[in-house]
Amino acid sequence: MRMYDIILKKRNGGILSKEEINYFIKGYTDKTIPDYQAAALLMAIYFQKMNENETVYLTEAMTNSGDIINLADIDGIKVDKHSTGGVGDKTTIVLAPMVAACGVPVAKMSGRGLGHTGGTLDKLESIPGFSTEMTREKFINNVKNFKIAIAGQTADLAPADKAIYALRDVTATVDNISLIASSIMCKKFASGADSIVLDVKTGSGAFMKNIEDAFELAYEMVKIGNGMGRDTVALITNMDEPLGYAVGNSLEVREAIETLKGGGPGDLKELCVTLGSHMLLLAGDVGTAEEGRQKIKSVISTGKALEMFKILVGEQGGDVDCIENTDLLPQAKGIYELKSDKTGHINKIEAETVGSASLILGAGRETEDSIIDHSVGIILNKKIGEYVQTNDTLAYVHYNDYKRREIAVKRLKSAYLIEKTAKPKQPLILGIVDQKGLLKKSDCVI
Amino acid sequence: MRMYDIILKKRNGGILSKEEINYFIKGYTDKTIPDYQAAALLMAIYFQKMNENETVYLTEAMTNSGDIINLADIDGIKVDKHSTGGVGDKTTIVLAPMVAACGVPVAKMSGRGLGHTGGTLDKLESIPGFSTEMTREKFINNVKNFKIAIAGQTADLAPADKAIYALRDVTATVDNISLIASSIMCKKFASGADSIVLDVKTGSGAFMKNIEDAFELAYEMVKIGNGMGRDTVALITNMDEPLGYAVGNSLEVREAIETLKGGGPGDLKELCVTLGSHMLLLAGDVGTAEEGRQKIKSVISTGKALEMFKILVGEQGGDVDCIENTDLLPQAKGIYELKSDKTGHINKIEAETVGSASLILGAGRETEDSIIDHSVGIILNKKIGEYVQTNDTLAYVHYNDYKRREIAVKRLKSAYLIEKTAKPKQPLILGIVDQKGLLKKSDCVI
Repeated sequence: MRMYDIILKKRNGGILSKEEINYFIKGYTDKTIPDYQAAALLMAIYFQKMNENETVYLTEAMTNSGDIINLADIDGIKVDKHSTGGVGDKTTIVLAPMVAACGVPVAKMSGRGLGHTGGTLDKLESIPGFSTEMTREKFINNVKNFKIAIAGQTADLAPADKAIYALRDVTATVDNISLIASSIMCKKFASGADSIVLDVKTGSGAFMKNIEDAFELAYEMVKIGNGMGRDTVALITNMDEPLGYAVGNSLEVREAIETLKGGGPGDLKELCVTLGSHMLLLAGDVGTAEEGRQKIKSVISTGKALEMFKILVGEQGGDVDCIENTDLLPQAKGIYELKSDKTGHINKIEAETVGSASLILGAGRETEDSIIDHSVGIILNKKIGEYVQTNDTLAYVHYNDYKRREIAVKRLKSAYLIEKTAKPKQPLILGIVDQKGLLKKSDCVI
Repeated sequence: MRMYDIILKKRNGGILSKEEINYFIKGYTDKTIPDYQAAALLMAIYFQKMNENETVYLTEAMTNSGDIINLADIDGIKVDKHSTGGVGDKTTIVLAPMVAACGVPVAKMSGRGLGHTGGTLDKLESIPGFSTEMTREKFINNVKNFKIAIAGQTADLAPADKAIYALRDVTATVDNISLIASSIMCKKFASGADSIVLDVKTGSGAFMKNIEDAFELAYEMVKIGNGMGRDTVALITNMDEPLGYAVGNSLEVREAIETLKGGGPGDLKELCVTLGSHMLLLAGDVGTAEEGRQKIKSVISTGKALEMFKILVGEQGGDVDCIENTDLLPQAKGIYELKSDKTGHINKIEAETVGSASLILGAGRETEDSIIDHSVGIILNKKIGEYVQTNDTLAYVHYNDYKRREIAVKRLKSAYLIEKTAKPKQPLILGIVDQKGLLKKSDCVI
């Protein structure tokens, strides 16, 4: 088998076999296939696309390119959740303890933030002492003993994906649906997931800017899940404005804790309950999504979810006192109030712009080496659909550096569109793609 | 400017500017742009194509990527001839002295053979002592003093083309018409040509297997020539069977000498007269192609062309006695007669197969490092359209190694198709694309 022939076949619109895809992934991982041949193939894939089988083979090959976390010792069906990334997305911090409190094991590998989106690991690390670095043994033991652990993804998971992603990033071959979907899914499978609930975000703050693309990605990932024999469900959710009110690491943790305590923003709570219900359903813990919703809600009202969060924080070295008294979390030196200079209906709070304002404050990473300031960020005071008058506070900007604040506030201001007439607000949950590939749109009280 | 943006633009069907193409070629030549980005761009070009302007810019940029031979000191318009390569193509050896004998300077840079096609340099080097290596000064002085020099192409001509061609070769991005045409043309321009006559071959022994592709390539190259302000004419010629009878280095030189002496195969003579007439026309030496034909024919009948060949051989260190007595050229140990096992009309002598049989005998290079046996090869005894009876000799196989002969003869046999009914024979010259882009097909007594 020769890489040249594989490139030529795909270039000419052929369907690659499992053996050919394995040959490419194996060769690219062990560096016997050079970057330039991989780049040519990726561009040919961009133009000629991959069919369902090829996408599944690619995902399988990348999953098997490195270590695979073996969660077999943990009783029960291990359900993972993945979000395609958004602004103010602290879902995992609320959801993981909720699901674990229901008795379903949560062995979660999370990522760090880059650009305008934050990362769960960064957010959790704003709790003093909290560590997401642990041996694989401890990770598995924690899940066995306490039902929950959240760790960083190790470098030896799906190394082929890491290498290919880096290459796509510099060769303008990122935006192909098969390549995007397989890249997400292989990491989940390498992390040992039996079943997966996907949160595919769409809107200004999401990777998928329009709803059609988001549905396409959702379908593609569910098809891969099915193709690899793992139950997979995808929710398509709105990311036109930030999720909840808080954007920035410790600010988001505080909001997550409020939600676990039974308060918190409506959209965040709704998303967590919906995602959680599907996780319980895939785990076989409940018979219907509605039953799952009730169970998730009950672990909030009984305080069991909050209790589980305390266990998580305590077991991973974090200061548990922060949970009762969130004032102990890192706090910025100053708070600036962004006032409205208009009267009208808020028709837009562009999530990506809010995310980049938070990044400017120091809450995110511009490059992989950037150091994060856990205390800074933005708390929205109003959300889309609300009516504001001139001088009403739109948002609180938590800052440590005056110059950064100046630029961030200017950026943040540009996120808003305030108009005389109110526009209809998009629902939070836009649709669901389940194991049978069915699409349910806009009627998602599931 | 970023290479990433250039790839993205072309991927999305955009038209690259002169600056962008220069940026790519300069960066790839000085190795600041990595292979993988160049490979991605080439594959994007394969799918999205390049328009006429882009192709001209690319050719210009590659021409300027290294040294350019300055032929300004040589009086007159320097006309180059280029063949896209075939089997038994000894045209240059006949044509160069013909044209020089007419008083038009011929400063020819030629190539070596690879695979089933031979190279002019290898053929000339079968003349004992003949050297194609010389300083640039000597090359130019020879043309000044004697009107003729034939040398090897130096490595510092169009290095961008060399690098890009090598990359295309391993990334399945060779067959794009703009890339093929610009690769050919930039080397001609870097060699200092003012005007170019192209011999675009089509058929089983040619790079362009079908006539439509050959015409497309011809058009493309003439457009580049026009775009760069150089008179360019392309002839589309038949390469379904070998040109002439001889295939193999010294055997081809012998046939070329016979042609210069006024004998030789009809097709070879016709091609040389036609190409030569257009070279004279572009050089401004004659007013019409017909006038050119007459002038070329006269330098054969007067012996001036042969005299010029003697000067060429003598000045480049070759044994001039070989010209009068061609038995002094390297000769193989044995000659095997391939007999026909059928009676009928020869409807096919697949040129590529004859070329590969000759390669097996040792006349060509399987890899760039192969050493050539100048004495071996094949002399056809019959050509397409002739009638043969069982046991008539089809070809003479000149060999030095019995085992190679066995394999070569088997291969050679497979080149023939002998049938009861004769098929109409294709004309030698299939068309012409001239400076105005006009196409003249099948009526080419020009």
